[in-house]
Order: sequence, then structure tokens, then C-alpha cells
Amino acid sequence: MKRVNINKLEEFIGQKVLVQGWVSQFRELKKFSFLILRERTGYCQIFIPSGITKSLHPESVIEIVGYVKEEKQSRYNGVEIVAESINIISEAHTLPFPINREEEIPPFNTLNIYRPLTLRKEKERCIFKIQSEIIYAYREYLRNNGFTEIQSTKMSKAGLESGAEMFEVEYFGEKMYLTQSPQFYKQMMVGVYERVYEIGKVYRAEGSNTNKHLTEFTGFEFEMGFIESVEEIMQMEENIFEHIFEHLNKFCINELQYLGVELKFNKIPRIEYSEAVNIIKKEYGITYEKIGLNTEAERLISEYIFNKTGSEFVFITKYPLSERPFYAMPSKEEGCSETFELLYKGMEITSGGQRIHNYEQLVNAIKEKGLNPESFESYLMPFKFGMPPHGGMGIGLERVLKQMLLLNSAEEASLIPRTKEKFIH
Amino acid sequence: MKRVNINKLEEFIGQKVLVQGWVSQFRELKKFSFLILRERTGYCQIFIPSGITKSLHPESVIEIVGYVKEEKQSRYNGVEIVAESINIISEAHTLPFPINREEEIPPFNTLNIYRPLTLRKEKERCIFKIQSEIIYAYREYLRNNGFTEIQSTKMSKAGLESGAEMFEVEYFGEKMYLTQSPQFYKQMMVGVYERVYEIGKVYRAEGSNTNKHLTEFTGFEFEMGFIESVEEIMQMEENIFEHIFEHLNKFCINELQYLGVELKFNKIPRIEYSEAVNIIKKEYGITYEKIGLNTEAERLISEYIFNKTGSEFVFITKYPLSERPFYAMPSKEEGCSETFELLYKGMEITSGGQRIHNYEQLVNAIKEKGLNPESFESYLMPFKFGMPPHGGMGIGLERVLKQMLLLNSAEEASLIPRTKEKFIH
Repeated sequence: MKRVNINKLEEFIGQKVLVQGWVSQFRELKKFSFLILRERTGYCQIFIPSGITKSLHPESVIEIVGYVKEEKQSRYNGVEIVAESINIISEAHTLPFPINREEEIPPFNTLNIYRPLTLRKEKERCIFKIQSEIIYAYREYLRNNGFTEIQSTKMSKAGLESGAEMFEVEYFGEKMYLTQSPQFYKQMMVGVYERVYEIGKVYRAEGSNTNKHLTEFTGFEFEMGFIESVEEIMQMEENIFEHIFEHLNKFCINELQYLGVELKFNKIPRIEYSEAVNIIKKEYGITYEKIGLNTEAERLISEYIFNKTGSEFVFITKYPLSERPFYAMPSKEEGCSETFELLYKGMEITSGGQRIHNYEQLVNAIKEKGLNPESFESYLMPFKFGMPPHGGMGIGLERVLKQMLLLNSAEEASLIPRTKEKFIH
Repeated sequence: MKRVNINKLEEFIGQKVLVQGWVSQFRELKKFSFLILRERTGYCQIFIPSGITKSLHPESVIEIVGYVKEEKQSRYNGVEIVAESINIISEAHTLPFPINREEEIPPFNTLNIYRPLTLRKEKERCIFKIQSEIIYAYREYLRNNGFTEIQSTKMSKAGLESGAEMFEVEYFGEKMYLTQSPQFYKQMMVGVYERVYEIGKVYRAEGSNTNKHLTEFTGFEFEMGFIESVEEIMQMEENIFEHIFEHLNKFCINELQYLGVELKFNKIPRIEYSEAVNIIKKEYGITYEKIGLNTEAERLISEYIFNKTGSEFVFITKYPLSERPFYAMPSKEEGCSETFELLYKGMEITSGGQRIHNYEQLVNAIKEKGLNPESFESYLMPFKFGMPPHGGMGIGLERVLKQMLLLNSAEEASLIPRTKEKFIH
């Protein structure tokens, strides 16, 4: 017999079927047993007459032959299977904790050796299903808008941003570094395809153990040429999020419902950095000595914007040039740059901006940061041979997921999270 | 004025437009000049009256305002622009070699510092456009067949296959390794979603400097649960390639034509490893002392199958168990395994198979390879808690591209290739 997937059972009412999956719940009563089976398309309720019952461990992989009957009281598509035979394919050992009772599961922790098991929980199944659909929607939107996907290397000779915070790789007796950002490669490819994007790993040897830092995360990156201003980059990102929200509301209805998340998209407000600083001072009486918005400032400005406009997102524009890498395009306003960050529910999830495209201007910008242009020979090369005005951005996928699904940390949005803490697997 | 993309010019005949792009070819004649402009949607022919002509360097980024006119002799969509004004946005330095005359370009070489420039050549633009569409088609097929995309870590505490050939990463004073394969994570996720796939970087600290080895390549991976036999894995891969071929024949017509490649898909023959060895002995008079098909054997057996069946692909099945990792499912035939390789035009591009899913059998298989099950605690965990019969495969994207497009080496199929040789960028 050929296996029938659980989401198709309604089409088999009155017929004999073979189903396969994991034992999610099992209750042995006096006269019969009762089973909830889990597989990739959902859950299904199975009635097991006493004659054929077996003691079944949660998570055992089994197959059942039985008749499909309509059962209005069933929570699972209004059907039930009455089992005729049960076959245990892989018997599970006793679980360390019941994985379908959230309250008995140890709280999420990178030291938890049971990640391969807890990933089977409904919450995690929802998180990573949504993750995969966010990725799908991101690509779909960009491909439909003339972007070409690229696969750049993740091992470089040196970093663009600074020497610190990079992981060293032993490469046949030489030193290489895991890339902090595909910035060089994205910009190089603007010279080839104008519009490029990449979804790939980004590495930061971050000392900080906060709920938003991972040492390895998934970066959504794009870079586009022939822009008139940085506004086009922000508009593209805004459109991407609008598309992602629409896509999830179509393809992840059950998952969003399970996690209690409602996704509504509003036009994203833009405010300048200096205005943000003023608002925080005026509204919350806080003055920052250091340039740059810290975690608290990000939270406060997001709160303010949400209360005023109802938007969970806000673009902060025109960051101080001194805070930005050498390739940031200066604004006509003294000391400002054509760069932005996107905050989502109080946390930075994107950094982006227009880049310098003129070779001589770029060489000078490198010198002004006290760096040596000779160390940037590879990076500078495309700029010698004609580069259009361009810009781009990078989104941290795990942070988006954390904020969207109200998770406690970015780690929970990574299958096998990597942080400075020790970890397992 | 808003920019018009070159592939839309036909809609603007008789109208004034603004176009932007790179100078691909420029010829200054006595009474006028003649320009071919390149941008992401194609090429366009521009006539420049002598009054407004400027000396234009190849690869300079320019914008032109002019009238679109029908021009039957134009190779580019049957239109031409008569320029009214020219503006140089970014002037290119003198090129080290003309990038549109293939014969004057230094042959491909990882030591070539000009990769960011040579990637702008038509050949490379075709290669990486096709690469991006292969990726798209791969994902599309699997998503439509119930697979969930995953993002696993690329830094692990240890390897599954063997300790050798791994790159060491300095991780806050401890040793980590770049993953040789997402095998562990894929199998773990079979317990979560049954069917999963990943497109990600794979690292091999390969000493070999051949035309097929890269130290960093892009792996297409999938793993699927509830299979009846390894045949289902091969069938899935066959379907994937059929879909990729169809997709490219629809979306990359010009690129395939430029590269002189015709894609026809035939049903893929399967032959057993022992039969392959016999054929090589009988047909070519070559006997191999060592177990395993070497490069020559792969080429010969592919040639034989192509001559017999017309298929450029061939699955070699039932590899000797001794040649396979511990997790390979043994066949009922003594000494054989339920594993396969897929050869494409004489080169291995995939390795796959059914995996052991029973915990006790897996522990014994680890011991039989002389390894210690305690070192595989993380890997073994999901098998304690119910795993279905499953299998999967991994495709090396760069090798597929090399074989499909008849490139000289896998390096040419990587934007910034990494090999043992020294390299730039």
C-alpha cells in the first residue's frame, strides 16, 4: 500500500489507508487506545480498538493501516482513522521530558543537549517553517525585480570593516578570515548585474552575550546600481517586508496563529538620526553622550513611533558619518551620511545606505579613516572601471524572526545557534 | 527623466528616453560615433552625431538622452537610439585588456587580479546568470514537493566523515571546524519536517589541485524521510534535473545560446557499481586494483552509457560498503551499500544514499568503522527518539555548472574561487 499524507485524508473517507508518522500523544484506556500521529503535513487522530493495541512510546515512528471516517469532534480536519494494524518502524527511547507539554520542557538554552529533540516541538516547527517562507518571499520579490542571486565566498584575506571581531581560519598554513559581510562581493557584482542579492552566512566574533547577538547568522543582502538616492534602497526594503508579510499571511496561517502573531503592514516612517536623538531627549529626558543609538534608545524611539503612527518599523536615516564605514556616501549636510538603519519593534534589524562610487573619492575616504588604500586593492578595483551610483542593505534573518515572533532571543531563531557561550552540537 | 531599461525600448519608438549603463564598445568615426551600451537587461546600439560626441572609455558608466528609432539592421531588438546628450557618470581608467575580445583576455586563473573586471565579460555574465536560475529551479522543485528549506551552521565541533581535510577555526580560544557536509543537521531535521533541503557552503581542505576540486563550494543538499528504498532518492534527483533543464530552456535561452549549450533531458540509466567495473574491464580492458571509480573510470563509464543510451547522466548504485561512511545503509547483497553516485558527462556531481535509521544498528556501524560512538553523541541523539527510513544526497553546484557549460574547471563556476593554490580577493 502507498502512504497517504494526513492532509489528504478527507479525500479517503470510507477507504482503507496507510499512514506513517511519529507518535505525538498516546493514551491507553481500558477498551481502546487513542493516538495522535504527527507527520510533515499535520496531525491526525487515530482510534485503536483494544484487540490490536500496542504500548506506544511518544516519538516512535509507526505506520497504521485503517479506515478513514468522518468525525466531527476531531480537531484534525474532521476525520479519524480506525486502526486495523499498527507497525512500529522505529521505537523511541523514553523521552527526557514530554515534548508536547511546553511547561515541562527546560527553557531554551544553547547548552541544552536536546536541541535535536526540542526542534520537533510545535513551537519550533512553526518558527522554522516561517523562517523558510520568509527566505522564499525575500528571493521571490528580488528575482521579480531584476535582481540576480549570487554565491560569494565566506573566507576572505581580510575584513572591510575592521580587523577585530573576525574568526581566523587556518588555510594551508596561512591565515584567512570568515567574512563579516559580503560587502566587497556585492559591490563588485553591481558592476556585473547592477542588482544582486545573496542569502548567506555572516560571522562576527562578538564578545557580547546579549539576546540579539549570534556569532554566525543568516544575512539577507542586496545591492542595487543606478539609484538616484538612498530612498530607493529604503523603498525596496519596505516593499520586501510588505511582500514577506503578505506571503506569510497566505502560506503560514496556522503557524502564525499557533504563535499568536498577527502581521499587519503599515507604511514605514523615516526619521533622521538627529531628530531621533532630539525626540528621546524631549520625550524621555535622556541625553546620550556617545554618538550612536544604543539598545535603550532603539527601544524608546520605536515605542514613540509606534504610538504616533502605528508602525512597528521605523527607518532612522542620516547617521553621523563618523559612525559609518569608509564606503558610506557623505550627505550634503555636514557630518551626516546617506545611511540608515531599520528598527523593528525596538531592535535594529538592518543597516544600509548609499555607497561612494567614485574611485578617487573612495581612496580619500579610506585615507580619512586612517587606513591605507593599498590594503584595499581588491576592493578598489571595480571602482577604477566604472561603477554607477549604488547602495544596498543587510538584514539579520534571526533578528527579524525574533522580533516578528516575539522570541526571547535571536538564538531561538537559529536551528543550531552559535554564541560566545559554550554550546552543544 | 526616469530611466528606461534597454529591453523596453521597442515600446518607446519615436520617443525621447534616458538610458544608463556601461560603455561596451565605442567607435569614433569622422562624422559620427557609434556606441554599444550594456546594462542588466541587455545591450543597445546608440548613434552619436558628431556635434555632441565625447571620447568614451570602455566600461565608463554613462547616461544618454535620445530618441528611439526603429533600425532593422540593429542586432539589439531592432532599435537604435539617436543621442541628444551624453553624461559621463563614472569614467573608467584604461582597461588592462579589452574585455569584449575573448582572444586578448588572459586565460582564467585564480591568480588573476582582474576577476572583478573579467566577471563583466559576456561569458561570465551568462555562467552566473545560469547558476542563479539553477538555484531557483532547485528550490522551486523541492518546495513544491513538500520540502522545507533549512539554514544549518557551518561551524562544528567535529566532522562526521573523518578528522582530515577540515579547516580549523579559532573560536574564542577553542577549536571549531568548517563543516564538510550538513549531513548531521539534515538528518536531525528529518525528525522535524521529514523532507528538508539546504543550499549552503561546504568546505574541504583538499590538497588536490585538479580541475574539479574547490576548497569551498556550494552544496545542494536534501534529505527525505519515509522512503521505501534508495530508488526514491534517485528518482527525486532525476526529477530535479529534469525540472532544472526545463527551467533553463525557458529562462536562459540567450545565455545557453551564447555558450553554445543545448540541454536535452533523457531518463537517467542506473547501473550497479560491480557492473560498471565489469564494463570497464570488458570494453576498455582496464582493471582497477583499488576499490572506487577514479576519474578515468568515471569518464569511461559515462562515455559507454552515453553511446548506448544517449544519456549524459548515469547513476552508479550499490557502492562497496567499505568505501562509504558509517551511516550508509548496507544492502542485502554482502559488502554492498544502498548508496549511489551520479555522473554527468564523465564526472561525479552527486553522492547520495539511504542512511541507517535504527539507533542500535548505527552504533554498531560506528564501531565497525573503528570509531567511538561516544564521539557521536550529538549525531546519535535523534536516532534514540524515532527516525523513519530516510536518505538524501548532495550535489556540488560548481561541478554541475562546469559539466553543463563545458567549462575548463569548477573554479570558473565560482565567483571568487577558493583552492589550495594562492588566490586573490
